[in-house]
Amino acid sequence: MTRDLIGLAGLDTDQIRRLLVDARAMAARPPMWRGPLDDMLIGLVFLEDSTRTRVSFEIAAQRLGGWTIELSGRGSSVAKGESLADTVRTIEALGVDAIVLRARQDGAAEEAAGVLECPLINAGAGTQEHPTQGLLDAYVFAEAHGRLDTFDLSGLTYAIVGDVDHSRVARSDIAAMTRFGARVICVGPESMCHASIADLGCVVERDFERALQAADAVQMLRMQFERHEEAGPTGASPLIGSLADYRAGYALTADRVKHMKPSAAVMHPGPANRGLEIDDFVADSPRALIRRQVTCGVWVRMAVLAQLVGKG
Amino acid sequence: MTRDLIGLAGLDTDQIRRLLVDARAMAARPPMWRGPLDDMLIGLVFLEDSTRTRVSFEIAAQRLGGWTIELSGRGSSVAKGESLADTVRTIEALGVDAIVLRARQDGAAEEAAGVLECPLINAGAGTQEHPTQGLLDAYVFAEAHGRLDTFDLSGLTYAIVGDVDHSRVARSDIAAMTRFGARVICVGPESMCHASIADLGCVVERDFERALQAADAVQMLRMQFERHEEAGPTGASPLIGSLADYRAGYALTADRVKHMKPSAAVMHPGPANRGLEIDDFVADSPRALIRRQVTCGVWVRMAVLAQLVGKG
Amino acid sequence: MTRDLIGLAGLDTDQIRRLLVDARAMAARPPMWRGPLDDMLIGLVFLEDSTRTRVSFEIAAQRLGGWTIELSGRGSSVAKGESLADTVRTIEALGVDAIVLRARQDGAAEEAAGVLECPLINAGAGTQEHPTQGLLDAYVFAEAHGRLDTFDLSGLTYAIVGDVDHSRVARSDIAAMTRFGARVICVGPESMCHASIADLGCVVERDFERALQAADAVQMLRMQFERHEEAGPTGASPLIGSLADYRAGYALTADRVKHMKPSAAVMHPGPANRGLEIDDFVADSPRALIRRQVTCGVWVRMAVLAQLVGKG
Repeated sequence: MTRDLIGLAGLDTDQIRRLLVDARAMAARPPMWRGPLDDMLIGLVFLEDSTRTRVSFEIAAQRLGGWTIELSGRGSSVAKGESLADTVRTIEALGVDAIVLRARQDGAAEEAAGVLECPLINAGAGTQEHPTQGLLDAYVFAEAHGRLDTFDLSGLTYAIVGDVDHSRVARSDIAAMTRFGARVICVGPESMCHASIADLGCVVERDFERALQAADAVQMLRMQFERHEEAGPTGASPLIGSLADYRAGYALTADRVKHMKPSAAVMHPGPANRGLEIDDFVADSPRALIRRQVTCGVWVRMAVLAQLVGKG
Repeated sequence: MTRDLIGLAGLDTDQIRRLLVDARAMAARPPMWRGPLDDMLIGLVFLEDSTRTRVSFEIAAQRLGGWTIELSGRGSSVAKGESLADTVRTIEALGVDAIVLRARQDGAAEEAAGVLECPLINAGAGTQEHPTQGLLDAYVFAEAHGRLDTFDLSGLTYAIVGDVDHSRVARSDIAAMTRFGARVICVGPESMCHASIADLGCVVERDFERALQAADAVQMLRMQFERHEEAGPTGASPLIGSLADYRAGYALTADRVKHMKPSAAVMHPGPANRGLEIDDFVADSPRALIRRQVTCGVWVRMAVLAQLVGKG
Repeated sequence: MTRDLIGLAGLDTDQIRRLLVDARAMAARPPMWRGPLDDMLIGLVFLEDSTRTRVSFEIAAQRLGGWTIELSGRGSSVAKGESLADTVRTIEALGVDAIVLRARQDGAAEEAAGVLECPLINAGAGTQEHPTQGLLDAYVFAEAHGRLDTFDLSGLTYAIVGDVDHSRVARSDIAAMTRFGARVICVGPESMCHASIADLGCVVERDFERALQAADAVQMLRMQFERHEEAGPTGASPLIGSLADYRAGYALTADRVKHMKPSAAVMHPGPANRGLEIDDFVADSPRALIRRQVTCGVWVRMAVLAQLVGKG
């Protein structure tokens, strides 16, 4: 493994499994495990807002004995016209031991890693990968089906539903799940789930109910209005016709959840648009593992930081 | 006491006194008193801006050995449409040991406490309570009149002046001061200090000068333009007619301060609109305890965190 | 030395040298040198955005064992109309041991120092001084020419190019460089580099190429559109006619860099407008010390904090 984490697609199965095994070990520890990052400084460069991912990395670094500084997009040098390469090299020159990067444009993680000497961890770039999300989803899916011992997911089906084309979560989930033998179904209208996504090793399904019957977990993607061209939470996106149409086809409602196997889990990368892609009844049901994803995310990020940046 | 702090109105007198006694002990310690919150993580969820309250809690937590993460309203998951309940449960799922919440809407603290397993501390919600402000004001009022030994405020009169109806500070001050035997006078025009506030156990007075003669401390509320409908620092609020009229009736000017007893204190929860509700001459006079309120606020918040969240 | 740092112009040469000597010692230490600021709290009051300076001070404080709290302009009490004096006194009342201030208006550092009991460190105010920038630039210039032993810069020429009139960096650089015997040339059109700047002890030059031939280092100032009246990165500023005209006269292009001595350095306080005041070819060349400036900035700020705030 290089000391960068750009995407899961670029890692071999053993590398991914070692990260998950270490995450499992983090879950068993007391909150603070000083040592791996003692006195090390992690630069969190979040050029696109993402509170939960940023805080999750911040907590992960601190729990390993490290500390963090943060640069956000608003009001920063980037807003003053600085290039991405200059920004991350400046942060490196301040003396950080690694950079965690969230950016809006595709290719940002590769570009940053190409100009840095310190490790670069991709925390989501454009519509490409969000590798720690893929890892945490694999962790939660494995846990939900008693597969934490080997992380072998064979025989299981994982459905990803909604705005797949705009979703870096979808890409990292596909990379993680298929690697461990799960079958992945991507579900959505043609305008949001193009047939070409199948090239990544998954199946495309237009019929949500058929997918629900087959799935052992359903990851309900967030409708990312902010990535569409003209839309907002109150209006219709040009990509989805009308919200009513979208809900009719692809919302996980109380009615629709009845099609799921009793053992099947409901997941969501958050933040959820309740009443749009998922209903309260479902999001608050016992099969919803949404907050477990948040909790396991910290362990996964601890594992990533310890392996890529840590001293040991 | 539950491990939440929603408001002072819900606590009994002994509980409030124990917090003030502990705050007094904090004042006597060196800056850092590691132990009570060692390795504990406090989530500061400030959905409405409040720099001084947020930083005060941050300092309080660190001085007790804890650490903090922060979620603000701007650019956060809340701005992406997430519900309050989902936001605080997500922060809890990240592994925090308590949440300090500031929110714009009434009822936010109760709602959050209702869905959380960890302690919830209200740092101001809507126009309701701001309990740590009430505690720190009681502390400063007691200190100014030599009552730190018992916090008994009987025989003393505390006047709250200005935009009472929009003020959560007023509500928490009334709860705290009346509990310890002080008489509380609320002063303001009818449009901003409705007669019904007397239901909380205080007296309503329209004549500022009469109140000044009686008071042992005057808490000059900040004019909260941001809670009125159409107004700004430069224009008139529909609630107050014109700023000149308001000042004529309720500003604490150099002339008006002459009506106060020599021993009476001037307080302000900050940030002050100098030249509006309070004049420079008054705010900078020896009887002004405005910065003392800030200093004591850290001790009060240390006491709250140690009692509600600490290891005991 | 008082315990404030307002500007370099107010320090004597020995005081400045002692700071540089201490910065040199910081460079030789491991990242963390706990002790000087143990348990001390530094308030970073950044009323104007400046990510790199704020983070640099934050890292400097932590590396000396201290910790920091931050108040920014957006959404803060300042945005609610609080005066500068009240803001910094409130932060002091929270219990900080020193305040680092960045502000938009001239005179802010003096005003703040005048009302504070704790040390005040100017991190840039208006168009006046930015003393730690002057110190770090002197450090890097001395290092580039093998003068780190004495910091004597005699016989060397330092050129400052561009928007000099709006630049606090220029003022602090002039104060630092001339103190150690360097000759300083300010270069720019009359509209941005008024002849009166020579009163500070430098020479004004309109011919960039002549300055380049003489210089041992060229500090390319950032075009600060945000300080001009009507302009933006895409349009022309009224001060500079058109960007094309400005570039024709004062950009450091690949062609123009040929006029420089082989040993001469290129510096930039950042963030750079690549393609405007400096071209990629130059900014990425070995003679560019832009990131070295960032690195040395942390050491300089550690020296300042240790001397002015530290325990001795």
